Amino acid sequence: MRLSRFHLATVKEVPADAEIASHRLMLRAGMLRKLGAGLYSWTPLGLRVLRKVENAVREEMDAAGAIEMLMPSIQPRELWEETGRWEKFGGQLLKLVDRKGAEYCYGPTHEEVVTDFARNELRSYKQLPLNVYQIQTKFRDEIRPRFGIMRAREFLMKDAYSFHVDAADLDREYGNMYRAYERIFTRLGLRFRAVSADSGAIGGSKSHEFHVLADSGEDTIAFSNASDYAANVELAEAVALDAPSTLPGTESELVDTPTQKTIVQVADFLGVEPSQCVKTLVVKSGAGHLFALCVRGDHEVNVVKAAKILGFAGDMVFASDDEIRAEGSEPGFVGPFHLENSMPIKVDRSASKLQRFVCGGNMPGKHWSGATWEGVPHEVVDLRSVVEGDASPDGRGTLEIARGIEVGHVFQLGDKYAEAMGATVLDEQGKARAMQMGCYGIGVSRIVAAAIEQNHDESGIRWPEGMAPWQVAVCLINPKNDAEVAAAATALYEELLGRGIDACLDDRGLRAGQMFADIELIGIPHRVVVSERGLGTGTFEYKSRAGGEAEALDREALLVRLTA
Amino acid sequence: MRLSRFHLATVKEVPADAEIASHRLMLRAGMLRKLGAGLYSWTPLGLRVLRKVENAVREEMDAAGAIEMLMPSIQPRELWEETGRWEKFGGQLLKLVDRKGAEYCYGPTHEEVVTDFARNELRSYKQLPLNVYQIQTKFRDEIRPRFGIMRAREFLMKDAYSFHVDAADLDREYGNMYRAYERIFTRLGLRFRAVSADSGAIGGSKSHEFHVLADSGEDTIAFSNASDYAANVELAEAVALDAPSTLPGTESELVDTPTQKTIVQVADFLGVEPSQCVKTLVVKSGAGHLFALCVRGDHEVNVVKAAKILGFAGDMVFASDDEIRAEGSEPGFVGPFHLENSMPIKVDRSASKLQRFVCGGNMPGKHWSGATWEGVPHEVVDLRSVVEGDASPDGRGTLEIARGIEVGHVFQLGDKYAEAMGATVLDEQGKARAMQMGCYGIGVSRIVAAAIEQNHDESGIRWPEGMAPWQVAVCLINPKNDAEVAAAATALYEELLGRGIDACLDDRGLRAGQMFADIELIGIPHRVVVSERGLGTGTFEYKSRAGGEAEALDREALLVRLTA
Repeated sequence: MRLSRFHLATVKEVPADAEIASHRLMLRAGMLRKLGAGLYSWTPLGLRVLRKVENAVREEMDAAGAIEMLMPSIQPRELWEETGRWEKFGGQLLKLVDRKGAEYCYGPTHEEVVTDFARNELRSYKQLPLNVYQIQTKFRDEIRPRFGIMRAREFLMKDAYSFHVDAADLDREYGNMYRAYERIFTRLGLRFRAVSADSGAIGGSKSHEFHVLADSGEDTIAFSNASDYAANVELAEAVALDAPSTLPGTESELVDTPTQKTIVQVADFLGVEPSQCVKTLVVKSGAGHLFALCVRGDHEVNVVKAAKILGFAGDMVFASDDEIRAEGSEPGFVGPFHLENSMPIKVDRSASKLQRFVCGGNMPGKHWSGATWEGVPHEVVDLRSVVEGDASPDGRGTLEIARGIEVGHVFQLGDKYAEAMGATVLDEQGKARAMQMGCYGIGVSRIVAAAIEQNHDESGIRWPEGMAPWQVAVCLINPKNDAEVAAAATALYEELLGRGIDACLDDRGLRAGQMFADIELIGIPHRVVVSERGLGTGTFEYKSRAGGEAEALDREALLVRLTA
Repeated sequence: MRLSRFHLATVKEVPADAEIASHRLMLRAGMLRKLGAGLYSWTPLGLRVLRKVENAVREEMDAAGAIEMLMPSIQPRELWEETGRWEKFGGQLLKLVDRKGAEYCYGPTHEEVVTDFARNELRSYKQLPLNVYQIQTKFRDEIRPRFGIMRAREFLMKDAYSFHVDAADLDREYGNMYRAYERIFTRLGLRFRAVSADSGAIGGSKSHEFHVLADSGEDTIAFSNASDYAANVELAEAVALDAPSTLPGTESELVDTPTQKTIVQVADFLGVEPSQCVKTLVVKSGAGHLFALCVRGDHEVNVVKAAKILGFAGDMVFASDDEIRAEGSEPGFVGPFHLENSMPIKVDRSASKLQRFVCGGNMPGKHWSGATWEGVPHEVVDLRSVVEGDASPDGRGTLEIARGIEVGHVFQLGDKYAEAMGATVLDEQGKARAMQMGCYGIGVSRIVAAAIEQNHDESGIRWPEGMAPWQVAVCLINPKNDAEVAAAATALYEELLGRGIDACLDDRGLRAGQMFADIELIGIPHRVVVSERGLGTGTFEYKSRAGGEAEALDREALLVRLTA
């Protein structure tokens, strides 16, 4: 593409509501223009990137045996009534009425439509498995659209749905899609993690989210530095840590801690590490029962795990000071001893491994030092949040923690939709069975924003090779309008195209500084300058967007560099 | 593609509301499945064809210098208010309200959005010309959706919009797009005509429709057999035909035609050709004034042309018998002579060329024979409809008449939208000017249906090469499940793929008759059978969907045939 014939329109000012880097940079680079709340036009530049993502997704889905189709964006209410989602889906479902008064929605997802397709189309197990996908515009009426295309209302999604005669075959295809997703994000050049949406063990899980790692991500992920273990930090399994005792003395004794209530205060006062202490929290279940939760002093109770263990929904509720005193303890000095008569005691794995520890004395101004778990009835559970450096629960490597942006999701739906909508096939025994279904989504447009969040600097976007609008920008610096210089730039540009390199020729006639700023802002991985000076020495100036100094390379060396 | 891993699902029964061939065949071939009124899912098979059309359109648009972008499908009411089309567009505009009560429509077209984009994006004539296009799902809330995808509510469209500093540049780009459209439809292998939406003269016209020729078309088109002249039959220019007199005698005389009122009756009675007669109709203008319209007896008054000449809107209104008598004439015996005192007389070009003719005598039971136009004040106009065999108005060839399906439209909008929405640029003199705009649409999904209307037989679809889901079907006939036969079919299939031929392998294990019926129904241009019998003689059975007998060809001959 010759940029003189393209519409490249970088801008300096971006609106104040562009809060995150990708939103600001997509506007500055001229990839997006806002039409309304959560509605964006993709400019020619933006669409080039979007199509690269789309094509990578399509090719890998095809290679994995999924078959592309295209369902309508407008879906009849009746189908959504069958699954109960017409009401349950909530405000994100954009409902509309046609000229005859019939009700529809603008599809935010297509489980109902594809299940209707399958129940009409599939009769026998012999037609299974079937995995169909589409790449299509979706609409979700976000209550607060923001972050540009990251949380837009209208967006481009790849959604796939697979149909199976039994759960084992669904499991097989789930693995197939999982691996296809790994190939897609690897090919796009993104640092990503597949995150289990429950326990984190890949084998048994029914759902994984694929996250692009970036500081601005909304989710926090723990992942191994030596395996593919990854989980949302709220769900990551925390292993039992060993912590040999460093406490002085050998006996358990009640010590004075007159005003020291927090772990840090107590540990400081007694001259021990917080990791040698046990922190005890008294919380209430939904039914009003009290529980004691014990974790090591350097750990935090994980509220999601606690909720699951105690069986309550929603936020954790702490016991009041009066409730604690009513059970014979003292706020700020709560410890496990003798509490077992008042409430069940749940002890985190790592806290339970402490041989001797400091804990509250259940009376004002007192803590135990050198205490042991002996004689304290308690249940050992996974109660704490993982921290960076923890051993990975799969036994391989240690955990790192990073933020992530969800860009993909694989999910085993089981027979939920097939049951609701009567989508059955005859099995080998001639018996009608509800089909097992999987669904597999990728936020195609969101990937573009997530990639920028992960890959940018103060000068602009730094596209991974697989997503760049062009691989190479040939910059023609030609203030004298010298025909020879122009011809050399054109010749190089055409040679690159001939070699299958996606190059653009910046023949807009800008000054070098302005041109380079544009090319860096829009994130082209490789920049080659053709100028009178270079031609004089038979060289081109090459610079990588990834960093490093500009180099003068002759034609051969340049081609080697660009085709490496 | 191996069909055993594809979802090919032909069906025998189609619903009674499938009125036209393309609708029936798309359902039978399993290309489409209905979701609701005017809403269709494209199955994997259907989508393969749709994507071939889409890609052909994209490549030719790119080659013509247009730049792809992507605008939202959901558009704010405010923009449509600016052009007045929120009300004026009518019931096809699907309006909707989001969760916050803001009003939108599902875009049936994008003039408003693209003009808004342009007014924000373009400042100077230096940024012009710009031609942007998108390939996108549109929605029109048809009051009576029918004919399958031909008149669906949700459909795929390519819409392009160009911006120019002046009308001359718009004219240039209009020609550029016109030629790109010719390339697109030629490449797709369709018989088509570009039809002027007004006079039919390409140079001066501001609008052309591109029609695929097919008997089921809704429009009737006249086109030259020797040039690219084509026009809607209502608008086609009718040239003056010469018709040397064959009337007996040399004098004008009043003859008795006691009960003969119609041209056929009079001509029969007098023993002359209808083409030697003049037919005179008395019609009323909107203001109630009477006019006489004269055409040759073998021609018909064209009501569209008459309306334009007389300046009335809507249907033609004939004068009543009383009104005719009030002007001194007689119903059934009306002729031009002496009528000039009562009303203006408009004479068609061909009627005016008659040297001597038969016409009404303006009194009961009387016609003139051997009359001439001498002494009758009249205006010569283009008043009749063209007929097959007329000379083409561009002087090259004669006219044929056929029915057509509109699949594309190029249109010079001028500054209509730019004026309404204040889309200006600074011209070379630094003066703000409303931009000149062109718009260029192609019904991508409609092309698929139109191609079938043009190319089908009793066995099914006959795709043009450029649109077929696959070029070649390799049919594996292997009732004994012989590994050698299967290997030979696979080897051939893979060789074709390796040569860049889009082939499928029908390895579904069907009986030959059923397989061939499927392959013919879905319209694959070339069929190759691999069977034990053929392998025995070292040949493959080749058959073209275009017709002809099956032939036994060896590998070399087959490859020559398929790569010809």
